[in-house]
Amino acid sequence: SGLVHIKNPHLDSMEEDVLYHLDLGTKTHNLPAMFGDIKFVCVGGSPNRMRAFAQFMHQELGLAGDGEDLADICAGTDRYAMYRAGPVLSISHGMGIPSISIMLHELIKLLHHAKCRDVTIIRIGTSGGLGIEAGSVVITDTAVDSSFKPQFKQVVLDDVVVRSTELDKDLAEELLACSKDIPDFPTLIGHTMCTYDFYEGQGRLDGALCSFSSEKKLEYLKRAYDAGVRNIEMESTAFAALCGLCGLKGESSRGPAL
Amino acid sequence: SGLVHIKNPHLDSMEEDVLYHLDLGTKTHNLPAMFGDIKFVCVGGSPNRMRAFAQFMHQELGLAGDGEDLADICAGTDRYAMYRAGPVLSISHGMGIPSISIMLHELIKLLHHAKCRDVTIIRIGTSGGLGIEAGSVVITDTAVDSSFKPQFKQVVLDDVVVRSTELDKDLAEELLACSKDIPDFPTLIGHTMCTYDFYEGQGRLDGALCSFSSEKKLEYLKRAYDAGVRNIEMESTAFAALCGLCGLKGESSRGPAL
Repeated sequence: SGLVHIKNPHLDSMEEDVLYHLDLGTKTHNLPAMFGDIKFVCVGGSPNRMRAFAQFMHQELGLAGDGEDLADICAGTDRYAMYRAGPVLSISHGMGIPSISIMLHELIKLLHHAKCRDVTIIRIGTSGGLGIEAGSVVITDTAVDSSFKPQFKQVVLDDVVVRSTELDKDLAEELLACSKDIPDFPTLIGHTMCTYDFYEGQGRLDGALCSFSSEKKLEYLKRAYDAGVRNIEMESTAFAALCGLCGLKGESSRGPAL
Repeated sequence: SGLVHIKNPHLDSMEEDVLYHLDLGTKTHNLPAMFGDIKFVCVGGSPNRMRAFAQFMHQELGLAGDGEDLADICAGTDRYAMYRAGPVLSISHGMGIPSISIMLHELIKLLHHAKCRDVTIIRIGTSGGLGIEAGSVVITDTAVDSSFKPQFKQVVLDDVVVRSTELDKDLAEELLACSKDIPDFPTLIGHTMCTYDFYEGQGRLDGALCSFSSEKKLEYLKRAYDAGVRNIEMESTAFAALCGLCGLKGESSRGPAL
């Protein structure tokens, strides 16, 4: 049917669903009217960047006006920011798995309530590149954890559930094909490693704490490269697991930070 | 000496330290002049709330002006927001352990570079209360994980290091004593549980995914209560572990969301 799958039997019996961190709700907003025609959702960490992306899409799609005055749909909260340009929704998710997870739970319910069909979701943003040219874009085939395993461990109450982190292969190939139309746009498909920590978790030597040597760091990053990892960030495993379970065609394309 | 402890032998040999996510650095800013007299750091999730808190402190401290025009010291980035009112620094950290960890690494280095002494750090914000009156403030004695253990598991490269999450007991008692001076301000000392997930991790029945029954949820929350947990949030274990290791007198006081 192309609809988003909600896997929660409790939702049907709820009189109202408040999407608290988006400042939206089923009683306060007409979600099908506001969002029913959305076909693409692009998500990234920074609110300013997601605003700039929506403005860029507005111009690319040739929509009326210059797109400079796009309103933040989540203006009533400062947890996330959301903009739309035609069928494209652009949303910020902050940094790290817990932050993107809250947003994705509420976004997925929003798309469900709005009866959206055939939605493609793409995560865009910066990441640390591994053994690739600076400025390259990595299109993720599989998100892996800090042990290079294609899995996301979700704590449900106090049980641990292991979820798959595969992303849509056809979409990855389609995005790669698009990149070939643009000159000087180095793009590749590879694994993306997702960590819970930016400093100690990604081998950085400049945090407030660092207990490893430069050699140990390089040895770890080399093992990651040998396992197929081409970039490192902090949200892709949760993104892949949640989107996969809810039937959203998902992809994570990251440009390493320059 | 009261100085902040940096536990990173690499930092001394670095020519410049860029506190990237705060948009500050040792070569671009005179950190001792800007921050050397800071004695209190208050951190919380939302940038708007931390601005409002700084304005409140500005008024409470009787500083010149109405405090309405406090500048965001991190205005060059939208990752975090930072305001100061006299000796008090007020900083946002977003949601979840990865987000607060990035901020704390850079804040701790900032306090180190600025040669601050005897700094007290307090995390303030909303949380989910457990078996207590709505609107109560919980002062955390110990942060615990989703298995009610007083520990924070930090992944360092691909090793797991277990860190203590005890907070300053004297500071907790001092804050509790302060609360007694204010009428109708229900305050207690208890454990705070920190989870990686807001929906499935905290027993919520209204996420996009929910695989447990209402009974299973209540059974888990009752076990948490019996283990001494009085509120639930998403940052306290990392906060306690990092501040403890770096010699910052830390406390986490949370008012449950009403």
